[in-house]
Amino acid sequence: MKVELLAITPGAERLIEEAGRTAYMSFAKRGEGSDRKFIRMLLKNRHYSVLEHASATFRISGVSRALTHQLVRHRLCSFTQQSQRYVNEKDFQFVEPEKVRENPEAHAMFLAQMESARKAYAGLQAMGVRNEDARFVLPNAVESQLVVSANLRQWRHIIELRCRAPSQWEIRQVSGEILKLLKKSVPTAFSDLELDEKGTIAVAMGDD
Amino acid sequence: MKVELLAITPGAERLIEEAGRTAYMSFAKRGEGSDRKFIRMLLKNRHYSVLEHASATFRISGVSRALTHQLVRHRLCSFTQQSQRYVNEKDFQFVEPEKVRENPEAHAMFLAQMESARKAYAGLQAMGVRNEDARFVLPNAVESQLVVSANLRQWRHIIELRCRAPSQWEIRQVSGEILKLLKKSVPTAFSDLELDEKGTIAVAMGDD
Amino acid sequence: MKVELLAITPGAERLIEEAGRTAYMSFAKRGEGSDRKFIRMLLKNRHYSVLEHASATFRISGVSRALTHQLVRHRLCSFTQQSQRYVNEKDFQFVEPEKVRENPEAHAMFLAQMESARKAYAGLQAMGVRNEDARFVLPNAVESQLVVSANLRQWRHIIELRCRAPSQWEIRQVSGEILKLLKKSVPTAFSDLELDEKGTIAVAMGDD
Amino acid sequence: MKVELLAITPGAERLIEEAGRTAYMSFAKRGEGSDRKFIRMLLKNRHYSVLEHASATFRISGVSRALTHQLVRHRLCSFTQQSQRYVNEKDFQFVEPEKVRENPEAHAMFLAQMESARKAYAGLQAMGVRNEDARFVLPNAVESQLVVSANLRQWRHIIELRCRAPSQWEIRQVSGEILKLLKKSVPTAFSDLELDEKGTIAVAMGDD
Repeated sequence: MKVELLAITPGAERLIEEAGRTAYMSFAKRGEGSDRKFIRMLLKNRHYSVLEHASATFRISGVSRALTHQLVRHRLCSFTQQSQRYVNEKDFQFVEPEKVRENPEAHAMFLAQMESARKAYAGLQAMGVRNEDARFVLPNAVESQLVVSANLRQWRHIIELRCRAPSQWEIRQVSGEILKLLKKSVPTAFSDLELDEKGTIAVAMGDD
Repeated sequence: MKVELLAITPGAERLIEEAGRTAYMSFAKRGEGSDRKFIRMLLKNRHYSVLEHASATFRISGVSRALTHQLVRHRLCSFTQQSQRYVNEKDFQFVEPEKVRENPEAHAMFLAQMESARKAYAGLQAMGVRNEDARFVLPNAVESQLVVSANLRQWRHIIELRCRAPSQWEIRQVSGEILKLLKKSVPTAFSDLELDEKGTIAVAMGDD
Repeated sequence: MKVELLAITPGAERLIEEAGRTAYMSFAKRGEGSDRKFIRMLLKNRHYSVLEHASATFRISGVSRALTHQLVRHRLCSFTQQSQRYVNEKDFQFVEPEKVRENPEAHAMFLAQMESARKAYAGLQAMGVRNEDARFVLPNAVESQLVVSANLRQWRHIIELRCRAPSQWEIRQVSGEILKLLKKSVPTAFSDLELDEKGTIAVAMGDD
Repeated sequence: MKVELLAITPGAERLIEEAGRTAYMSFAKRGEGSDRKFIRMLLKNRHYSVLEHASATFRISGVSRALTHQLVRHRLCSFTQQSQRYVNEKDFQFVEPEKVRENPEAHAMFLAQMESARKAYAGLQAMGVRNEDARFVLPNAVESQLVVSANLRQWRHIIELRCRAPSQWEIRQVSGEILKLLKKSVPTAFSDLELDEKGTIAVAMGDD
């Protein structure tokens, strides 16, 4: 699994301050460090709407179609995903759950099933079946990749929802990686969200 | 594949008229058949926003996870879908593409692969692997079911986008069934959308 | 100010249960009162998405344009509002804040200003200025009416956000009326939200 | 009226190409000018979703509250607007429609009404009425300012809807200015939208 930051609004935290001060017409208060102070006030008061003015785009690759089916349910994101209609998947990579990999017998059965799926897919192709129909034999484990864009309010929402113990492990890992990258680029806007050693967050300020 | 209408806003076309006349404060013009006339005017002028006041909910079952991964991309719908984390899929049903079924050799290979996936899933379960990890071997063909709600403007959008020749066959069939059910319940609001013998629509009034 | 329920999804709480059980394929558990039990479980676990399958439509009238400018910011609602471009506002009604009405001097000044605005509007009309330009002299106090539709999850969000002490009085009153009507139609889905004597709610289960 | 571009996704057209090629895994086709070619193909095929990966933020000032009430109806935008609850409007500026200004008698009546509103507002404040209630006497003409963010697909939608002859003049002017700024920053993504001498567009490729 790999998460890369492809783009983020330039001067994001300054822009958030500039947009937010429009509500109060308090532009005179801007100065050294005022953006960080302003954003901390927004987080404290849960005025998250101002965070929507900055957006970030990530490429997520090496994830299963099980993960992507879940991820694309986030309706305030924009997605472009590798298509199984248009792309030939004969050499597909796959994601193996850790609980399977660490059990030798399960691991062997899993690998055999991936191989069986690959043969069935190639076999159907060889009989003239189109990719869009041959993909019906492909397993959830098949790797996919996508580009996702969302504003910072929405990224906070996804992280608060998914970086938690009850979440499925793959989406928890992806959202943890996203949090790490956002903390580097826009540290104040994510300053209240901290990953613990298990890769989950303790939600401090309210939890939705 | 099966599509059932579970619920629709009562008196939907009357409600649309009542809401729409609020813009013009033209309530005095209401009378016998005035709702149908009003809605035809809305369609002609592409004032689709008024159609958002009525909603319809469908149960869609017997469709593949390939279909549902695509369907849940419609961000203005509300979805509740059968979960592969919580539901034991050991007796899964599956969807077989027509192009596969009509070729005896492809059909046999397809069935064998379904059987192989079922055994791998049950095998992993027997080794103590949880459903949420065992599902990684399940194919896209596995049947799923979901309940989907959307307002009438959004249903028009989905139908106009998906009931077309270039669309994938399964989503085209589902949206065709939805159109048939909506034409029975709210005939005027879908009066300009007609399915031809191939199950596609000729978009008359604009094409988005 | 007046709020009327125009339409609501029939059998809303039963529908929510039916949709929600699709995730777990637990239809066998349905029975007398099972919908109420199921919905209480959803609220407790904050699984609000299932509430989106039911929608309610209200007519809101006798409210100021100050209120409507704020209300239409709720992006998950559908609105149809009385238009000041198309409707002749020469006999406009208006909303007077209580703090103004209870002060005789302020009250007199307020009424005089409403009268002045009415004359200016009529005067501009008489000179051939169109309604869409004459409205520029109309005050925020001018009454408007609108029809608003949203799903139950979104209505909960609006009520939790607006039925609070810091909210502006007019939007607090409107959302309080909406809560009263929803508690009659879908009591379980709003069972955790109670208005106190000041018309505000104590948010019990989480606060966003 | 003034429109300023505050921020735009860096390398927006390259990013759109990079995201879009993920669907087809066709990264090898990238090269000098390939982004422009790719985006023209997207416009031709109406694959507008890929344009969502880039966003732009504008400050709009010197516009009437009549305009902003209409503008904030666009639900896929993020807005932060000057608040009449928190900002003292005693020295408000105002927007005068051209049709009023060019008629001396209407112009005089308009100015007198602005002055009358200013006095009533200040008078109410002097009696201890809070800004949030005193604003009820303020006219639609009062100037406001806001910061608006949206992705490029949504900006195209707003421009296609609002830069048209039947649109209200103020929102047509604002969206025309936005188009001019976007054509400078992301020329290919708006290459099919051209303003004529009346500030309206001829929609070439489809019209919604």
